[in-house]
Amino acid sequence: MAQAQQAGQQKKPRTAITPTRDENFPEWYQQVIKAADFAENSPVRGCMVIKPYGYALWENIQRALDDMIKEEGVQNAYFPLLIPLEFISREAEHIDGFAKECAVVTHHRLEKGADGGLVPAPDSKLEEPFVIRPTSETIIGDSMSKWVQSYRDLPMKLNQWCNVMRWEMRTRMFLRTSEFLWQEGHNAFASKEEAHEDAIKMLGIYERLYNDWLAMPGIAGEKTADERFPGAAHSYTNEVMMQDGKALQACTSHDLGQNFAKSFNIQYQGEDGQMHLAHTTSWGLSTRSIGGLIMTHGDDDGVILPPKIAPYQISLLPVLRDDQDSSEIIAYCEKIRAQLKAKNIRVHFDSSDERTSNKMWAAIKKGIPLRVEIGKRDMDAGAVTHTRRDLGRESQISCSINEFIGNVEKILEDIQQTMRRKAQDFQDSHIFDLKNITEMKEFFSADKTGFVRMNTDILNDPAFALLKKDLSITPRCLPFEDKGQKVIIGKSY
Amino acid sequence: MAQAQQAGQQKKPRTAITPTRDENFPEWYQQVIKAADFAENSPVRGCMVIKPYGYALWENIQRALDDMIKEEGVQNAYFPLLIPLEFISREAEHIDGFAKECAVVTHHRLEKGADGGLVPAPDSKLEEPFVIRPTSETIIGDSMSKWVQSYRDLPMKLNQWCNVMRWEMRTRMFLRTSEFLWQEGHNAFASKEEAHEDAIKMLGIYERLYNDWLAMPGIAGEKTADERFPGAAHSYTNEVMMQDGKALQACTSHDLGQNFAKSFNIQYQGEDGQMHLAHTTSWGLSTRSIGGLIMTHGDDDGVILPPKIAPYQISLLPVLRDDQDSSEIIAYCEKIRAQLKAKNIRVHFDSSDERTSNKMWAAIKKGIPLRVEIGKRDMDAGAVTHTRRDLGRESQISCSINEFIGNVEKILEDIQQTMRRKAQDFQDSHIFDLKNITEMKEFFSADKTGFVRMNTDILNDPAFALLKKDLSITPRCLPFEDKGQKVIIGKSY
Repeated sequence: MAQAQQAGQQKKPRTAITPTRDENFPEWYQQVIKAADFAENSPVRGCMVIKPYGYALWENIQRALDDMIKEEGVQNAYFPLLIPLEFISREAEHIDGFAKECAVVTHHRLEKGADGGLVPAPDSKLEEPFVIRPTSETIIGDSMSKWVQSYRDLPMKLNQWCNVMRWEMRTRMFLRTSEFLWQEGHNAFASKEEAHEDAIKMLGIYERLYNDWLAMPGIAGEKTADERFPGAAHSYTNEVMMQDGKALQACTSHDLGQNFAKSFNIQYQGEDGQMHLAHTTSWGLSTRSIGGLIMTHGDDDGVILPPKIAPYQISLLPVLRDDQDSSEIIAYCEKIRAQLKAKNIRVHFDSSDERTSNKMWAAIKKGIPLRVEIGKRDMDAGAVTHTRRDLGRESQISCSINEFIGNVEKILEDIQQTMRRKAQDFQDSHIFDLKNITEMKEFFSADKTGFVRMNTDILNDPAFALLKKDLSITPRCLPFEDKGQKVIIGKSY
Repeated sequence: MAQAQQAGQQKKPRTAITPTRDENFPEWYQQVIKAADFAENSPVRGCMVIKPYGYALWENIQRALDDMIKEEGVQNAYFPLLIPLEFISREAEHIDGFAKECAVVTHHRLEKGADGGLVPAPDSKLEEPFVIRPTSETIIGDSMSKWVQSYRDLPMKLNQWCNVMRWEMRTRMFLRTSEFLWQEGHNAFASKEEAHEDAIKMLGIYERLYNDWLAMPGIAGEKTADERFPGAAHSYTNEVMMQDGKALQACTSHDLGQNFAKSFNIQYQGEDGQMHLAHTTSWGLSTRSIGGLIMTHGDDDGVILPPKIAPYQISLLPVLRDDQDSSEIIAYCEKIRAQLKAKNIRVHFDSSDERTSNKMWAAIKKGIPLRVEIGKRDMDAGAVTHTRRDLGRESQISCSINEFIGNVEKILEDIQQTMRRKAQDFQDSHIFDLKNITEMKEFFSADKTGFVRMNTDILNDPAFALLKKDLSITPRCLPFEDKGQKVIIGKSY
């Protein structure tokens, strides 16, 4: 934004990312990922390579969420990657709409083929193929059926951090890839009420992660019957509005009732001495959250990361012009770095011989929340010049080193809050209460940005079913705050 | 051991684990895993379920190692689970002895078969099959070939924590399973010397993890040519002696020379302006470490965990006999627990209504390093009764709560050191310096416990090649401390 003014009014603003969000939002998204060095496409169709900077972000998300779910008494465990086909068949019997696009393992050995390359050895064909887990309800259900014997074993709360695979035809990095990373939680309870409350509680934990760590608001609520996870009694979601007005289903939590307990025979002996089916939930959050983070906070210069989750909270850049001063400036920076480190602040110190403007743009494109530039003048004055990534060049301030060190946590906290508020304001100002299907049709036909909120009557209107397809819209959720009386409708990722 | 004395001299000692180590070491191992609730076999052939207590141990190992490798400038990333067959073929061209037992993905969709169950849809057959990664040299090499352009990009140090799969015929939990969890590091350097030093340095980090955290000694050294990783110029290992005298290859670090760089075209432009092949290393440590931990430290009552890595360092057990005192004792325990928590000590507080002796045995079988039992008498006296898992009942001490809290870190540290020393003593006293092949043959034919150390001449003796097979022995390594002059020979896992 600041450069726009410098470039003069006639010229098109120069941005680090081409195209801009307005010009082409989906392409902007891909370019932001590339500019930040988060990930790239791999030679395996539909799978991505998560590069170190993107993975560091995922590690921070993992750490934050893992701490929260452990506080809830959830225990991490690990279950096999491969699922026996029989398990999937058993699930498919009980559950309509089960997704069948998945990677199937049929052989267990390679051998040299006719052309000298390797081929699956015919004599290694498996009697029963396996599927790479698209999700683990079935194999975890099988274990739970052994581990749950008595009411004393309940509740049982399990989680695994793992890779899963679904054979996706159209993929987009972080948002939809054939393989992705996630956590999947699977809890079992004695009573229907406990499971129901748990599904809502775990969604609440996700909301907290999004709000407090990722500075992402969202609309929490229940999925409509059509949009439920196959086999769930109730599905809950947090739908976050991206800057193009589309919804991202940022996580889900399902009350599975007794459906999976029935398929996998999860029974317990109650205090009454009788056998009862357990009630289960499942809840998941994936690397998709990173896609949402980009589309919530990014600007035309790239991603902007909330300080609490950013791999580096501060980019420390020595401005080196004259070789003679270089070592002094670097020593001055090291002093600052040590003081920041003592406060547990994550600092990226770039003392390479790359040009300062390149380093500065790299920090901007990587979305590092606060940039500290130290030139000879700063050093001589015992000063620190710093610029907020979220507010851009206009926020540049120079202050004494002591003042900076004393205030740095407050500055980072303010960035976090400002980002959160800005996203909330955007979302709030792009939800439109409409009265009837004509208004709704107009809204989406005109390609307006945002969500529509309507009375739930519309879900029963046959005309809506047709419009959904024509306009590529879906009911995103019945918001909790509207107590099931309203439905949020939108386009989505 | 303590119970042995109680049970009287005539009777067979009562132990928590049946059989004992002496009776049947492999079966003892399986029973220890079951008793500790670490893991169990899964419905997927050759794959295990890592249960919460086993996984918590793995998380602690991960955290410790991850911190160490990050200190070395290694960055975590994530690469696809599936490897294109073409990559494996390319590797196989360059490298003899490449393992071909692996899970092959050939289809991407299921459909209803004739009998109503699900089958791979014939029209979803992949043009080129994929293999589930047995290790990721190839796919990471492919990325590195793009990421490494100039000498400025080197060294590049990447690591991923992931699952891998090899189709194993004979499996044993933690030691050899078709799927297992590990980290695999892949570093690239400009010079041969740097790569060589790096392979040795990364092995040193593993040694530190084993020594300082897992209280496991071991013999670090180089693998002989026959035992090298296919394609490696040098393979390094830490061979740890289990209590049955067998060796566990506890980790490996490979200097790959330019072999993989050649296969995957990892080239950089040097300062001389010319293109050069990079030199790479790879280094891995897996859930196998947990199997080694069990077989190093376990006794006939189960596993014994070193405090630094134990999910729970202290088991806090209220001894509840009289309902009237129960709530008071529990309150007293809560006070102790809070003081331990303030010191960041991981406490398992078991206030369930299970019988005290059952709780005590559970803590023993889970290998919790220190057990604190609190009865009414302790409470009335403001005392704490504690027993070390490694020393057994004879180590039981009662002291004041203040003394205990003041000393607890020292006690845990002493357990850690004592376990380390004991394992070292065992190893040291079971390495036998033998002079010739006759002595060696006698040693292993008599099924003696331990390693044999000999001059490396034996490796060139044709008789040794025959004996290796007959006696199921292998050269484990050329120890660093013997500067390549000696070879350690043993049976192994």
